[in-house]
Amino acid sequence: MIIVLKVGTQEAEIQQVVDAVRKFDYEPRLIRGVERTVIACVGDERMHHTLESLIVLPQVESVTPVQKKFKLVSREYQPSDTVIDVAGCRLGGGTFHVVAGPCSVETREQTLETARLVKAAGATLFRGGAFKPRTSPYDFQGLGREGLALLRAAREETGLPLVTEVMSPQDVDMVAEVADVLQIGTRNSQNVPLLAACAASGKPILLKRGMAGLVDEWLLAAEYICVHGNNKVILCERGIRTFEHATRNTLDVGAVAVAKKESHLPVFVDPSHAAGRFDMVIPLARAAVAAGADGLLVEVHPDPAAALSDGGQQLKPKQFAQLMAELAPLVQVMGKRLAGGTTPG
Amino acid sequence: MIIVLKVGTQEAEIQQVVDAVRKFDYEPRLIRGVERTVIACVGDERMHHTLESLIVLPQVESVTPVQKKFKLVSREYQPSDTVIDVAGCRLGGGTFHVVAGPCSVETREQTLETARLVKAAGATLFRGGAFKPRTSPYDFQGLGREGLALLRAAREETGLPLVTEVMSPQDVDMVAEVADVLQIGTRNSQNVPLLAACAASGKPILLKRGMAGLVDEWLLAAEYICVHGNNKVILCERGIRTFEHATRNTLDVGAVAVAKKESHLPVFVDPSHAAGRFDMVIPLARAAVAAGADGLLVEVHPDPAAALSDGGQQLKPKQFAQLMAELAPLVQVMGKRLAGGTTPG
Amino acid sequence: MIIVLKVGTQEAEIQQVVDAVRKFDYEPRLIRGVERTVIACVGDERMHHTLESLIVLPQVESVTPVQKKFKLVSREYQPSDTVIDVAGCRLGGGTFHVVAGPCSVETREQTLETARLVKAAGATLFRGGAFKPRTSPYDFQGLGREGLALLRAAREETGLPLVTEVMSPQDVDMVAEVADVLQIGTRNSQNVPLLAACAASGKPILLKRGMAGLVDEWLLAAEYICVHGNNKVILCERGIRTFEHATRNTLDVGAVAVAKKESHLPVFVDPSHAAGRFDMVIPLARAAVAAGADGLLVEVHPDPAAALSDGGQQLKPKQFAQLMAELAPLVQVMGKRLAGGTTPG
Amino acid sequence: MIIVLKVGTQEAEIQQVVDAVRKFDYEPRLIRGVERTVIACVGDERMHHTLESLIVLPQVESVTPVQKKFKLVSREYQPSDTVIDVAGCRLGGGTFHVVAGPCSVETREQTLETARLVKAAGATLFRGGAFKPRTSPYDFQGLGREGLALLRAAREETGLPLVTEVMSPQDVDMVAEVADVLQIGTRNSQNVPLLAACAASGKPILLKRGMAGLVDEWLLAAEYICVHGNNKVILCERGIRTFEHATRNTLDVGAVAVAKKESHLPVFVDPSHAAGRFDMVIPLARAAVAAGADGLLVEVHPDPAAALSDGGQQLKPKQFAQLMAELAPLVQVMGKRLAGGTTPG
Repeated sequence: MIIVLKVGTQEAEIQQVVDAVRKFDYEPRLIRGVERTVIACVGDERMHHTLESLIVLPQVESVTPVQKKFKLVSREYQPSDTVIDVAGCRLGGGTFHVVAGPCSVETREQTLETARLVKAAGATLFRGGAFKPRTSPYDFQGLGREGLALLRAAREETGLPLVTEVMSPQDVDMVAEVADVLQIGTRNSQNVPLLAACAASGKPILLKRGMAGLVDEWLLAAEYICVHGNNKVILCERGIRTFEHATRNTLDVGAVAVAKKESHLPVFVDPSHAAGRFDMVIPLARAAVAAGADGLLVEVHPDPAAALSDGGQQLKPKQFAQLMAELAPLVQVMGKRLAGGTTPG
Repeated sequence: MIIVLKVGTQEAEIQQVVDAVRKFDYEPRLIRGVERTVIACVGDERMHHTLESLIVLPQVESVTPVQKKFKLVSREYQPSDTVIDVAGCRLGGGTFHVVAGPCSVETREQTLETARLVKAAGATLFRGGAFKPRTSPYDFQGLGREGLALLRAAREETGLPLVTEVMSPQDVDMVAEVADVLQIGTRNSQNVPLLAACAASGKPILLKRGMAGLVDEWLLAAEYICVHGNNKVILCERGIRTFEHATRNTLDVGAVAVAKKESHLPVFVDPSHAAGRFDMVIPLARAAVAAGADGLLVEVHPDPAAALSDGGQQLKPKQFAQLMAELAPLVQVMGKRLAGGTTPG
Repeated sequence: MIIVLKVGTQEAEIQQVVDAVRKFDYEPRLIRGVERTVIACVGDERMHHTLESLIVLPQVESVTPVQKKFKLVSREYQPSDTVIDVAGCRLGGGTFHVVAGPCSVETREQTLETARLVKAAGATLFRGGAFKPRTSPYDFQGLGREGLALLRAAREETGLPLVTEVMSPQDVDMVAEVADVLQIGTRNSQNVPLLAACAASGKPILLKRGMAGLVDEWLLAAEYICVHGNNKVILCERGIRTFEHATRNTLDVGAVAVAKKESHLPVFVDPSHAAGRFDMVIPLARAAVAAGADGLLVEVHPDPAAALSDGGQQLKPKQFAQLMAELAPLVQVMGKRLAGGTTPG
Repeated sequence: MIIVLKVGTQEAEIQQVVDAVRKFDYEPRLIRGVERTVIACVGDERMHHTLESLIVLPQVESVTPVQKKFKLVSREYQPSDTVIDVAGCRLGGGTFHVVAGPCSVETREQTLETARLVKAAGATLFRGGAFKPRTSPYDFQGLGREGLALLRAAREETGLPLVTEVMSPQDVDMVAEVADVLQIGTRNSQNVPLLAACAASGKPILLKRGMAGLVDEWLLAAEYICVHGNNKVILCERGIRTFEHATRNTLDVGAVAVAKKESHLPVFVDPSHAAGRFDMVIPLARAAVAAGADGLLVEVHPDPAAALSDGGQQLKPKQFAQLMAELAPLVQVMGKRLAGGTTPG
C-alpha cells in the first residue's frame, strides 16, 4: 500500500499514520517529497487488513494498493495454461472449442434437432438453458427440471457434453447430475454462495463476467471458486453494459486479452449476448478468436422467430454453419486447433 | 409492439410479417409511409409472446415495445403511495426514515455502541451486515449466524428494528427470524431465486438497484417480489457504475425521481455506497432528500479506520449526528416528516 | 510517481529503472517489499516529464502519479471561493443565481417574451443559443449572428446579463461583443483552441463538463483557461453519459460536491440537459441545490411543443415559476441567498 | 414517428395530438389498441420538424422516431463501398492499409527514423501529431507549425502520404497544405465548425469516434462532412469510455461491424488509444481486422519510454514489425489485400 499525505502535514500527524500502519502489521517506510510525504507500507496485502480505511484520517490524501488481490488464478502463481477436461474435450491450451445450442430448451424436438445440427456443424459441447434468469417475471422462466431431462436426452443422442446454467445453491446437486459444465450467469457473477456451491460440486464451471464487472472482479470471482478447491474454471466474456446500444452489450475484446495475460484459465466468449442481434454474432465471434479467446458460446435455434427467449440474437443452424466455416481459418492463423472442425481434405 | 419494415419491402414479405404477428395473437394494423411500412401490433404485451424475435426476419428493420413490462409496482396500477409498516415505523408516504449502522457487525461492543449512538442521533432503524458479499475471498466475509445474534442484541437493547442482508435462499428463514427487513444487495438485484425466497418470507424487503441496473430492470426485480404475493418492497438506489471514479459509484438522483413517478413503492437511497468516501456522504444524502427520496441507508462505525469492511465510507457517530442535523430542515422543506427527529421545542 | 516493479526483478533491472527516473530529474527512493520493489520518485509531477511512459520497461508493473495535475483551479492554491462579477451579478460565494432562457433563440417575440417571463420569476441572467452544436446536420443550427441581435435586444429590454454559447475560436470576438458570459458546451469541453480563444477574450466563461469527462479532466479544462490568465470560470455539470436512458444523461451530484471541495470556482448545474425531459427538471434542480451548487442553468420556452430544438426538456414559464418557488426555501436551508428571489415580506 | 398516448386518454385529447401532428406536416394514422392509442405519423423525418417535442403534452407517453437521421453516409443511399484515393493509396473496398507513426512529432531524427522504420515494416501512410489536444495544459502541446515541416520532410524522404490532426478551423488551410488526410480527433468529433472547415478543404478526412459517441452520432458527424460536399470520410473507432480501466478505453468491435453494415464509408481502428498500453495493441489490432475493419492507425516510437506524449501505448519498431507479421494472414483470411505487405514469395 502507498499512502500519500496531504501537503503541509505536520510531523505528529505523520507519526499518527505511521502508528496506524504498524498496528495493522505493515512496515512503514517514509519518503519525504517536495510537497508531500509518502508512506510505503511493506506487507502482503492479501493476508493483512486493508489500509484503505486510513483514508478517513484527515491528513491522508490517498491510499493505493500495489498488489493484485487475486492469486490462485494468476499467471504469477501458475505460468502455464490450465487445460480442463470435459468428458474428453480439453478446454484451453491450444484447442478451440465451440459450445452451441438454444438459449432455452423448449421442447424435445427443438432440443434434439438443435443438438444434432450444431454437432454436425462442428460444435463440441451443447448448451441450453433449463433455469433462466429473466428480467421480467412475465417472461418464460425455463422448463426447470423437465428441461434437464431434455438436455440429458440430447447428450445421450449426440454424445456432446452439456453446459447449462444453475441459478441457486439449492439446485447445484440436481443440475450437476446432468451437466458436464455448470454455467454461472452474468447476473450471478458475484453471487458468493452460488460460487461456493458450484465449486463444491467439483464440476468444471463456466463463469460469465458480470455486465458491470471489472476484469479484476471477474478474476476474483474465479478466485472464490479456486479457494474452495476447484480450479476448473472457464472464464467467459459476454459483453459489458455501456452507453452504446447499437449492440445489446459492448464486447470487450481487451478484457479477453488482459484475462489471458493475467490468468492461466481458459477464456471463452459469448458473442450472442454481446451482440443481442443475430447479424452481429459472426463479426463478434471472429473478433473474439483474433483477440485470443479459447472458445465460444453461441446461441442457435431452429426457428429463432418462434423462440421463447432471446429470439433476436439466436443463429439459425445455417448461419451457425457459416460461423463455423469462417472460424476455421482464423483459429488456424491464431495457432490453435479447432476441435470438432472437419479436417480439410 | 411497433414493427418497422425496411425500405422496399415487397407486398408478399409484408404479408409474411403480418402472418407472424397474427400467429402470436396480436392484431396487425398496417401503416404505409413515404418510404417504409409500419405494422402496429395490438395486444397486451405482458401477456403475449414478445414479437422482438421477429427482428430475425430479413425484411424487419426494428421492433419496439410500447408497453412497460412492470404492472403491480406501477402508479398506473396503484396511484397512491405504498406505506410499509416495520415494527411501528411507517416507511413511505410522507415520513422520512434513516436506517443507520455499521457496514459489518464485528463485535458485541461495536454493534451495541453503534446502535445506541445512531438511535440517539435520530435513526429509526438499525442496519448491519452479518452475511457480506465481498469482491475478494480474502476479505472479511461477515460473522454469519453469530452476527445475527449480535444484531438481535442490538434490537433488544435499543428497540430499533433491524435491516440486514441475506445472500442465499437457504439462509432466508434464519435471517428472517431476526431481521425486520430483509436486504437484497446490489450484486443480487436480479438473483431470481433469492427474490422469490425473500418474497415468500412475507417480510418487508429492501431491494438495492443493481450497479448496472436500468430503472426498468430495478422495477421488474420488485415486480418479481410482488408477483409472489409480497408487496412490501422498499426500492434503494445506491449509485451506478460509470466511467467516473471520483466517487465509488455515481448516485443517480434522476432514477430516484423517475422511480417515484413510475412506482408507488417507497424509494430509499444509500449515499454511503454511492460515495465510497466518507467526505461525500453528507452532500449525497442531502441531494437524495431533495430528489424526493423517502429515506436513507447510512453506514456508521465508531472507529472507521479499524473497520473490517468499507472503512473509508463509514461515518463516525459525530459525523452522522451532523448529517441528521443537516437533513432535518431539508426533509421539512420537502414536505415530509423526519421520523425520530427531535421535535423542535 | 510511484513505480511498482514486477515480482522477481533482478538488481540490474532495478538499477535500469532508477537510472531512467534520474534521467527525468526525479529523485528515486527504493522500498524493498516482501514480494516487490517499489520506487518512489520525488519531484514536481506537473513540471517534469511524466514517468508513466516507463510502463514500457518489461520489469515495470505499474506507474502511479501522486499529484493532481491541476493547480490554479485548486483549493490548495486558493482556499477561498472565487466570486465572479457579471454585470453586477456576483456568481459564487454564497449567492445562488438562476440563468434561464430558451434552448435556441428563434424569433424576436419568443426571445423577448421568455426574457420577460424568466426575469419576472426570479432569473438573474438570460440564456439562449444562437450558435447550436446539433447532432444532425438536418436539425436547426441556430440563427447565428441574427440570434445575437435578438439576445442583445433581450438584454436591453430586461437588463438581464447574457450567457450564450460560442462554438468556434473565430466567433469569439463577435459573440463576446454581445455576451456577458461565454458558454463552452459539453462537446467542446476539451476543445483547446476554443478554451484559449475564450480565455483571451477576458470574459467570464461557463464551462460545461464533457459528457464523458472525468472531474479531473473538467478541472484541467478550467486550468487551460486559467493558465491563459483568465480565472473567471464557472464550472457547469450537465449530466454524464451512462448506460441509463430513463433520463437523457445521469446528473452527477457527486461531481458537484467533489468539484466544490477540490476547486474554488463556482459550480453551476444544468438540470435541463441532464434530465432531457421536462418532468424531471425540477427534482434534478432541487438535488443540485442540495449537493452544493452555486447556481442553475435552466431551459424555458413559451411553447415547448413548437420549439426548434430540445422541446421535450424545456419548461413552460409557469413550470419555471414553480421551480423558482421550490428552490427558494432549499437555497435558504443551504445557507445561501437566492439572487433575484422575491424577499418574503 | 410513433406517438404512444397514455392509458385513458380521452377523445378530445387524442384530437389535440392529431392536430399538432398535422401542424408539423405529418399525416397522422390512429391505431386504437387494448389499453393505449398509438398515432403513426407519416412523413420524412429528416426533412420535417421533429415531433419529439410533443412529449411535453400531458397525454403523450412516448415519441419514437422510425427513421435513421443520416442519409448520405448510409448503405441505403449508396450500397457499394466508398474507396478513397490518398496519393495512390486506395482506402476501403478490399485493401487493408496500416497508418503508423509517433503520437507526436518531436524531433527531426525521431520523425524520419520512425517514418523509415514503419515503411520498411509495411505501413502505407505515416501519422504524427503536430497539434496535440492534451488533457492538461502542462503537458507537451505539440510542435505546431514546426511539426508540420518535419512531417513534410518525412513525406519527402519516404513517399508515405501523411495523416495528421487539425484542431481548429483557423488551422485547416495550413495543415491541409502538408497533410494528405486531415484527422479530426475524438475530442472534436462533434465540433461542427471544424467538421465544416475540414470538409471545405476537399481533403480526405479521418474522423475519430467520440469517446462517448453513439454509432449514430459518429455517422451523423460524417454526414455533416458529406452535406458540405466532401464524401471522402474515413471513420475511425478508437475505443469508448466505460467503467473498465484495465485498458484505457474499451475497443468497440461491435461498432466497427455495425458501421460497416450501416455505412459505405471505410472504417479504420486505432488500437493504440483503445488499449492505452503497448502490450494490448497487437491483440486489439487483430480483433479489429477480424471484426471487418479496413485499416489501422498505430502509434510507433523509436524509444517509447522517452516519448513526449502517450509513451505507454506506443510500439517499438520491432513490436510494430511483429504486428504487421501477425496481421498479414488475418487480413488474407478476411478476404482483403494487405497494402504494402511484402508479397510472400
